This record gives sequence, C-alpha cells and structure tokens, in this order.
Amino acid sequence: MRLTPVGSSQIPGGDVLLKHENHQRTGSFKLRGAFNRMLVMPESERARGVVAASTGNHGAAVACAARELGTTATIFAPTIADVSKLRNIEGHGGTIVQAGDDCVIAEAAARDHAATHGLVYVSPYNDPAVVAGQATLGVELDRQLDQFDAVFISMGGGGLLGGVGGYLKACRPEVEVVACSPANSCVMHQSIDAGRVLDLPSLPTLSDGTAGGVEADTITFDLCRRVIDHRILVSESQIAEAMRILLVEHHTMVEGAAAVTLAAYLAEADRYRDRRVVLVLCGANASQPVLHEVLGAHE
Amino acid sequence: MRLTPVGSSQIPGGDVLLKHENHQRTGSFKLRGAFNRMLVMPESERARGVVAASTGNHGAAVACAARELGTTATIFAPTIADVSKLRNIEGHGGTIVQAGDDCVIAEAAARDHAATHGLVYVSPYNDPAVVAGQATLGVELDRQLDQFDAVFISMGGGGLLGGVGGYLKACRPEVEVVACSPANSCVMHQSIDAGRVLDLPSLPTLSDGTAGGVEADTITFDLCRRVIDHRILVSESQIAEAMRILLVEHHTMVEGAAAVTLAAYLAEADRYRDRRVVLVLCGANASQPVLHEVLGAHE
Repeated sequence: MRLTPVGSSQIPGGDVLLKHENHQRTGSFKLRGAFNRMLVMPESERARGVVAASTGNHGAAVACAARELGTTATIFAPTIADVSKLRNIEGHGGTIVQAGDDCVIAEAAARDHAATHGLVYVSPYNDPAVVAGQATLGVELDRQLDQFDAVFISMGGGGLLGGVGGYLKACRPEVEVVACSPANSCVMHQSIDAGRVLDLPSLPTLSDGTAGGVEADTITFDLCRRVIDHRILVSESQIAEAMRILLVEHHTMVEGAAAVTLAAYLAEADRYRDRRVVLVLCGANASQPVLHEVLGAHE
Repeated sequence: MRLTPVGSSQIPGGDVLLKHENHQRTGSFKLRGAFNRMLVMPESERARGVVAASTGNHGAAVACAARELGTTATIFAPTIADVSKLRNIEGHGGTIVQAGDDCVIAEAAARDHAATHGLVYVSPYNDPAVVAGQATLGVELDRQLDQFDAVFISMGGGGLLGGVGGYLKACRPEVEVVACSPANSCVMHQSIDAGRVLDLPSLPTLSDGTAGGVEADTITFDLCRRVIDHRILVSESQIAEAMRILLVEHHTMVEGAAAVTLAAYLAEADRYRDRRVVLVLCGANASQPVLHEVLGAHE
C-alpha cells in the first residue's frame, strides 16, 4: 500500500512516513497473511474450504481470500462479537458460526470443526505461511524507500511484527524495529520481559486489533525476541489522541491498533529527531462508538 | 487513485466502485487541477509564485503544487475560515493572507494582489488548464476499467464534472455522467435549469466543498450543460447518512462533498440495478465537529 509523508505541526521531529494498510482491502494488513496461507496449500485442500476463529480483521481477511480463490470460509465467532464486524465478515463472503461467549471457546470450536471435517484452520499469527504473508509489507517498504532508519509496528500476536521485522533484518539490518503495544493489553511485551509466553489477563483497550492473549507455543515469540530493537508501551489516552490526530489532522481513517504506532512515536519523538521513520497504520476498522468517543473528546 | 469495489448490504443494486480521491495528496482531487495549471505556465511566470483564494481544498492543492514545483503560493482566505483548514494550507507550505469576512472579498483581494504584483491567479474551476487537470481523473478511469455504465460526480463550480465528463464523452460516450449536488446549495444545477448562470444564495450544507456561488462567466457552465446526462439533488440528511455509511461501514474517510455521490446513488439505486457504477469520492477533509455530528446521529 501507499506511503505518505507527514509534515504537520501536530507531529514533531523528523521525517515521518505513514504506511497505509488502513487502505488495504478488508481494511487491514491481515489479508496478506490469509492470502499467503491459502495460496501455499494444495489445491485439493483449498477446495474443501478453510476455517478460522475471529471477531474482526482476520475473519474478514480469510473470508475475502477464500472468495477470491474460489473456495469457502467458515468463521467462528463468540456470541458477544460486535454485529458490524460480523456483517463485515459476511460482506466478504464468510459464513459465521456463533460459538460460545468468549474467544477461547470460539477458537476451540473452530479447531474442532476443522479437525472433524478435515479442513485447514487458519491461525491469525501462529503459522509460518501467515507470518510470511505479513512480511510482504516489509518487501514493499524495501522497494518503496531508498533509506529509512526505523519502522514502528503494532504488536499483538506478533505476526506482522515478526514477518516485517524478520524480512527487514535480512535485507536492511540498519533499520530499527520498534514494537508498539497498548499498556492495557501487552501480553507479548510482558512475555518478552519474562523470557517465556505468559498467560495474562488484559484490560480493555482502544487497540482491540492487538488485544488479548498469545498462544503458548506461538512461533512468533522467538521471532519477535530476535528482531525487536526497541519496545514502547502507550496509554489509552495516548492512543485516543493519536487516533484523533490521524482522523482530524491527516484525514485518514484508522482503528485503535493503527494509532498505537503514532502514539508510540509521539511518546519518544525526541529520540527520532532528524531520522526517517515509517509508522505502519495496520487497519481502518474502528467501530462507530469508538470513533464517536475519540472525536468528541476534544470539542 | 485506487478504485475499490463495494459489496455491502448497505449499498443495494448493482456493481458499485469507489474512486478514492479522498486518498489523494492534500486530501482531495483539487491537486490535479492546481498541478496542471502550474505545469503549463512558463517557468519564468511560475518562479514568481502564484495566488489563490480558498478556505480549503483548493488552497491546500495550490500550496502543495507550488512547493513541489519549487515556488511559492499566497492563499487569501476570509477571517471566518476554519482554523484547521488554514493550518492544512500552511502545512503544505502556503502563506495565508486573511482578507475580509467572506469569500467574495477574499477572492477580490487575491485577484487584486495578483494583478498588482504580476502573479498568476489560480482559479478553482474557471480556467481551461485547471479543468484539464481535473480531467486526468477521467483518464485514470478509462485505464482502470474495461467497461462501466455511469459515473457519479459532485458538482460545485463544475471543474471536476466538466473535466471528467468532457474526457469521457470523447472516449466513452456510452458512460452516463451524473451530476450530484446538495439541494441546499446547487447554483450550477439551478443555472442549468435556467439556461444562464444565476446569482443565488446558498443554505448551509455538509458539502462545503461544493457550496457557494458560480462565477458569471465560468467556462464550466457550457461544458457541464453539454456533458451531463442526469442530475440528482440530495438533502442534508441523505448526505449525513451516506457519510456515516462510508465512515463506519466502509471505513473510508470522506468529507460531505464526497458523500454527495453515494447519497445520490442511494436515492436512485433502482435505476442503476445491474449496471456498473463509479462513485467519485472527491475528498477527505471533513472537520472534527462535522465528523462528530455525523457519527453521533445513529447511536
């Protein structure tokens, strides 16, 4: 997707570029991983359809990739999921199955359904083909820019960060890889501190796209540990202010998880003065109440 | 800019594509006309700098094109102009001169300044080079699509409509050109009805990008009369609902003038059933109070 320069008085410091995954089809980077996972499977396997568990961007991405590749996607979601997000998944051709009242139950149901029917379960991040798909964002940055000093990436399960960071460390080892997380839900961040994947609760966060637990055996844990140069935590008010700046000053639609990178940059802008920085805006799918709340805060 | 398909239950009827001028640099299509006007002038003229009168998108476009081409832009704005829009113009390198308390006074001051200093005044629509610049959007559509049946374009001064419509009538005469205007401010629409350019007042509208009067001698009047196949007026509530759908269902940032095309399409969707329709989203630069109002309306 496009890279656009930022030069506003609202964003101090150096030379900041926005990577617009918020303009991606389905409204997030997740399409990259879902597509790659489905492109690398044998045709006979793909033809039977795929299964995923998601309340949001991953579900829409798997549904979209399935339709594009001429097959079907069954997306398991908890009954508490936001109606507009489920409609988005259906709008991309996915079949919703409501299962249980939390994400853990929905995921277990999805894995069970896949095993019973001999279908592939598409993980949102714990799969090398998914991580390699997310890495295509790094390939694009490598082609789009002659030189840059740092890339800020939101970290949830670590699929995007691991993929892009891994690619860049191979071809642009000088680029600083900065992992950005909401303090209210930063399980991968805390796991890296602890040296092992932790099972921790999360507080509510505007960055719902990165929120929640991390699978105990995830391949992204060692990958993230290896490629991250610097980690920044941000508060909910910092995320809200970054969202407001992007929506109102830069007129670009973002969800909370995307604003986490700008919030992190603003928190440490002095450190990046006179350096060329890429902020990845990972998605656009903010809900109406969240948009309304963020836009109302400063009137 | 990109074309993206729409397939939501929110938008009935046929095969609808969105043309994303809301992702354009400076946040609107206006850059096309401003750039072309400044590219066709002699270098010696360009080097002296240019002048425009604008409170918004045209001013930012002229400022951006001037900076890109290594010269300066002086933008005259009334003292009542929105502060965030003026900051946007300054962010693109323009020098603001505040002149008078309405747009007519600011424009007169800009023309006077240009004449006194031997500088080119860049009109927002009443100039063949500006209209030809806007026509590049039609060139892109011609290259992006093998076939389409209709294009919906918001109409203010008629620069975008005249340029795109004129180009398409030459190479794709089968494409229906649909002019979309807010009922609260539709001077060109009413002028076409009357057979001459009228001097009429306007009511407030969410579509501030198309609002206001039309110059009596504008070259766009005959052009619009010749290329328009169908005209649709929309109410403020129709514009607000279209904005809400684009922001919340399609997660794409638009200003009111852009939502006018979706509002017009929704008003006559039955007419376009089973036809391939392009809706031009002309810009993204909505203000925070407008976004807040539109997003709050349906909670």
